[in-house]
Amino acid sequence: MKPTRSLPLLIGRKPVMEAIEQGKPIEKIFLLRSASGDEINQIKKLAREHHIPISQVPVEKLNNLTRAQHQGVVAWASLLQYVELQDAISLVVDQGKVPLFVLLDGVTDVRNVGAIARTAWCCGAQGLILPTSSSASLTEEAIKTSAGALHKIMLCRIPSVPQAIDVLRLNGVQVLGTEMKGSVPVFESDLTIPSCIVMGAEDTGISKDVLKRADQLIRIPMANSFDSLNVSVATGMILYEAAKQRLTE
Amino acid sequence: MKPTRSLPLLIGRKPVMEAIEQGKPIEKIFLLRSASGDEINQIKKLAREHHIPISQVPVEKLNNLTRAQHQGVVAWASLLQYVELQDAISLVVDQGKVPLFVLLDGVTDVRNVGAIARTAWCCGAQGLILPTSSSASLTEEAIKTSAGALHKIMLCRIPSVPQAIDVLRLNGVQVLGTEMKGSVPVFESDLTIPSCIVMGAEDTGISKDVLKRADQLIRIPMANSFDSLNVSVATGMILYEAAKQRLTE
Repeated sequence: MKPTRSLPLLIGRKPVMEAIEQGKPIEKIFLLRSASGDEINQIKKLAREHHIPISQVPVEKLNNLTRAQHQGVVAWASLLQYVELQDAISLVVDQGKVPLFVLLDGVTDVRNVGAIARTAWCCGAQGLILPTSSSASLTEEAIKTSAGALHKIMLCRIPSVPQAIDVLRLNGVQVLGTEMKGSVPVFESDLTIPSCIVMGAEDTGISKDVLKRADQLIRIPMANSFDSLNVSVATGMILYEAAKQRLTE
Repeated sequence: MKPTRSLPLLIGRKPVMEAIEQGKPIEKIFLLRSASGDEINQIKKLAREHHIPISQVPVEKLNNLTRAQHQGVVAWASLLQYVELQDAISLVVDQGKVPLFVLLDGVTDVRNVGAIARTAWCCGAQGLILPTSSSASLTEEAIKTSAGALHKIMLCRIPSVPQAIDVLRLNGVQVLGTEMKGSVPVFESDLTIPSCIVMGAEDTGISKDVLKRADQLIRIPMANSFDSLNVSVATGMILYEAAKQRLTE
């Protein structure tokens, strides 16, 4: 999670509050654990509204980030733009394209997120959906690993996975959970219709919310199942299958 | 190429020579650039015979590897076993299996090699073929990235790519070069027959030797071709296609 180089900093209560209000993209807010008061409450409220992750930290963490007077509030400015999920879906549909999204449910490794963005863009996916609470910060390293794809693909930050699944399904997008024990081999799944592929964390897999709410649980057939695949390789296989189906239909 | 932790060292002319003669697996030999004499010539000859990479280095490099009396010769002992390519093919055929090999033509990133081994094993490939002159050293980091697959898959070190292609073809194994501009989309290639997939370096692609000698040049169809795919993801897509064809034929 540690970025190789830090993102640009916003320091202090007013600067962070104003940046959010002006719609500047913010990657993450660090709040002093003991901080309170009207301004702090206002920052928390704005962060919720804009799906910005908040990390409540001890003072040492803030002092490590900056030597300036931080008043208990430091934020990483984002190098990327975020889009509302509903807006992203509408945009794809308005362009006459068939939605293909990837939802990362707990993928926290910066390089994996970057690699997945690169593959997703190559395979024609239009958007990457990232839960506010459990995603990697999109640092310079993530952008570099993505070969710039993070600047091209739409990025949607979502406060809750179940809520995002509801939005997708209301828009006619099928939600496909990927699981080693999924009942449908991915090549038997119809990926030519509007689809969102959900990939889970490498260790724990997709969350129960997704297991319960997905339209289908798909699996990648394996010859030797001694261990799971790397998440970015597994995502590549599924997106390849999607790209192939869409190109050959 | 720098391993996070070094491999076990063999230090000095006699110990290195004896280790090779006893068939102990050796990852790489570092020779003082100015070293000469009968013993040095003997080490070079043995290294060639056993397909062990030699790196001719200045004395500072050797002194960095060890403080002991190195006599101009230091070697990394290997954590893995290597198999002759012909033996590997014969073994697969004897087991009644259809050969599926991956040849890495200039993939020098330790993590990529590890990730590819992991995927290859999951997808049913039996062997990984690595040119002596242009491969990553298989360090602990490579093994870790492979999730242990480097201990399971057969590893063949080859002195020359054209020669290895000849061996493969003499054994009835088709050689498929992967290229962005390959004429055949991978899903139109028959991967159910004995096959070796050749993956090139991320920047330069597969070498001219392979371009000339491959039975077929395959490509991964892409929706947005703004950049190439990561080599371990691309390998995953092709091996997924192979595994799928073999499971569903």
